[in-house]
Amino acid sequence: MGADYVAGVDLGGTKIYTLLATTEGTVKAEAEVPTEAGRGYEAVVERIAETVAAVAAQAGARPENIRAVGVGAPGPLDPRTGIVHQAPNLGWKEAPLRAGLEARLGLPVRLENDANLGALGEYAFGAGRGGTELVYVTVSTGIGGGLILRGEIYGGAGGGAGEIGHITVVPGGPRCRCGSRGCLEAVASGTAIALRARELLDRGAGGAAEAITAATVARAAEAGDPEARAILDEAAWHLGTGLAAVVNLLNPGLVVLGGGVMRSGRLLWERMDRSLREQALEASYRQVRLVPGALGARAGALGAVALALRAGLSIDFGKH
Amino acid sequence: MGADYVAGVDLGGTKIYTLLATTEGTVKAEAEVPTEAGRGYEAVVERIAETVAAVAAQAGARPENIRAVGVGAPGPLDPRTGIVHQAPNLGWKEAPLRAGLEARLGLPVRLENDANLGALGEYAFGAGRGGTELVYVTVSTGIGGGLILRGEIYGGAGGGAGEIGHITVVPGGPRCRCGSRGCLEAVASGTAIALRARELLDRGAGGAAEAITAATVARAAEAGDPEARAILDEAAWHLGTGLAAVVNLLNPGLVVLGGGVMRSGRLLWERMDRSLREQALEASYRQVRLVPGALGARAGALGAVALALRAGLSIDFGKH
Repeated sequence: MGADYVAGVDLGGTKIYTLLATTEGTVKAEAEVPTEAGRGYEAVVERIAETVAAVAAQAGARPENIRAVGVGAPGPLDPRTGIVHQAPNLGWKEAPLRAGLEARLGLPVRLENDANLGALGEYAFGAGRGGTELVYVTVSTGIGGGLILRGEIYGGAGGGAGEIGHITVVPGGPRCRCGSRGCLEAVASGTAIALRARELLDRGAGGAAEAITAATVARAAEAGDPEARAILDEAAWHLGTGLAAVVNLLNPGLVVLGGGVMRSGRLLWERMDRSLREQALEASYRQVRLVPGALGARAGALGAVALALRAGLSIDFGKH
Repeated sequence: MGADYVAGVDLGGTKIYTLLATTEGTVKAEAEVPTEAGRGYEAVVERIAETVAAVAAQAGARPENIRAVGVGAPGPLDPRTGIVHQAPNLGWKEAPLRAGLEARLGLPVRLENDANLGALGEYAFGAGRGGTELVYVTVSTGIGGGLILRGEIYGGAGGGAGEIGHITVVPGGPRCRCGSRGCLEAVASGTAIALRARELLDRGAGGAAEAITAATVARAAEAGDPEARAILDEAAWHLGTGLAAVVNLLNPGLVVLGGGVMRSGRLLWERMDRSLREQALEASYRQVRLVPGALGARAGALGAVALALRAGLSIDFGKH
């Protein structure tokens, strides 16, 4: 016999990060490998399977004791059919990831949008434990989000709910990769912050042609650089505008903010909160708590574990 | 014995509109009286009670056969305690409307936000029948909204969810009565459309100093007036921006649009749809149906009937 385990996989454009956990959610092993998406869909499926085998071996788990695998992938995808409709980072279109992995692993696989799994991870194991409602927002190279309503992922009609990154916050603003203009992601993501800083340097405002990131800008702002401060303030204001739309629309009790950019310092957080306060309805602002994510970069993989646990447990109930 | 009935009340700043319906939701009688809020809270409670008695008498129902009363009131309010926190139109603060009406009527009373009841009405008896999810938006003097998620009103932490009218769509735009700037309501409500038209006339662009409304503007636009057209187009574009935020965030399958402004012609609708298409994520746009409300101005009172039916039926189950 031996203990039962589930695996959680966070599939990204550059890396695959996989956890093995007990049915109580205790992490026993983890592994990270480059995705190498250029080698094609079949190769990526194989790589994911290898990470699952690797974490099982690390934890000393027998293959038959792994009950289920949860996978978070960039959307849009359909959790019911397990098909990834479109993943530009991976070069995929209509990829049957769930069926492919189930065939390769001989295990039940559940697939979800990575931002939804970030929400589920924080809900099950992180900053949202104990409640039933949670809005999760992640600000890193892009801006994503997921909703937990009444204790479950709320995906809407097609699993795409939670896309706060594509709310228009600057009408007629910069073009977004989604095709629209002035989306929150186009003006407040890590990518957008770094781009603004590089534009400023290119115009000769000083500084070296180094690899500028949102973290560089945040550090310069905290150190007192007025131009870095202005860039950060503007991005933070836009984040508050997007959050205000969420707060007015859902009146959430809890918003969990994850992603690298949210960990870039107090200035961003304070300015974002002020923007939210000015633009949200007073009663709804009073009722919401904004908290940083508790799981860091592991939120998605831990959400995949939670997804797998639910799937795995229901399969258990069916068998016994 | 005799049949059982429930009453639905739509309490507004200028009028009280009350329906009596069977437990199957068939409307048997209706009544409308001026609110006369200036006479105070007690007088309004008395007036509501009188309308309930009036519709009962009209339908030939005995008082003991009325099982419950549902009331929609302007928010913010707390459905659980039955207290209206603040209703500027009525001059109320912390008014215990549910307890007051229950004492006066000797009947179970359920209270909800009027926009949430518009959503519930369309869901139970109107354009949303048969589904489980619905976003309701009403555009009249103000802009309100309500959410039905998984078959129930979704109120969020404090019952205030669905406030699409206060999403920022024009950053730094006109001041809204909520205190913020550039809210959807401040630039696309019937009040905002009429105000823009009056400003234009005051600047001497022509026309008489008549009482201009959003309906006047819509008629002039349909008749080919370029300035009326421009005003309507702008409001419609903003409506699409607000809807895009909702569509990106909730990925709804159905959005029901009610309120007088939405019945003002095809031009507004088409332009709004185009704005939505440009600003919503493609997959989410494809999955949403926008439909006009099926219940017109009765949506809120019919939602109150649905609320009362649910309350009344559960009380029945308890008694028998």
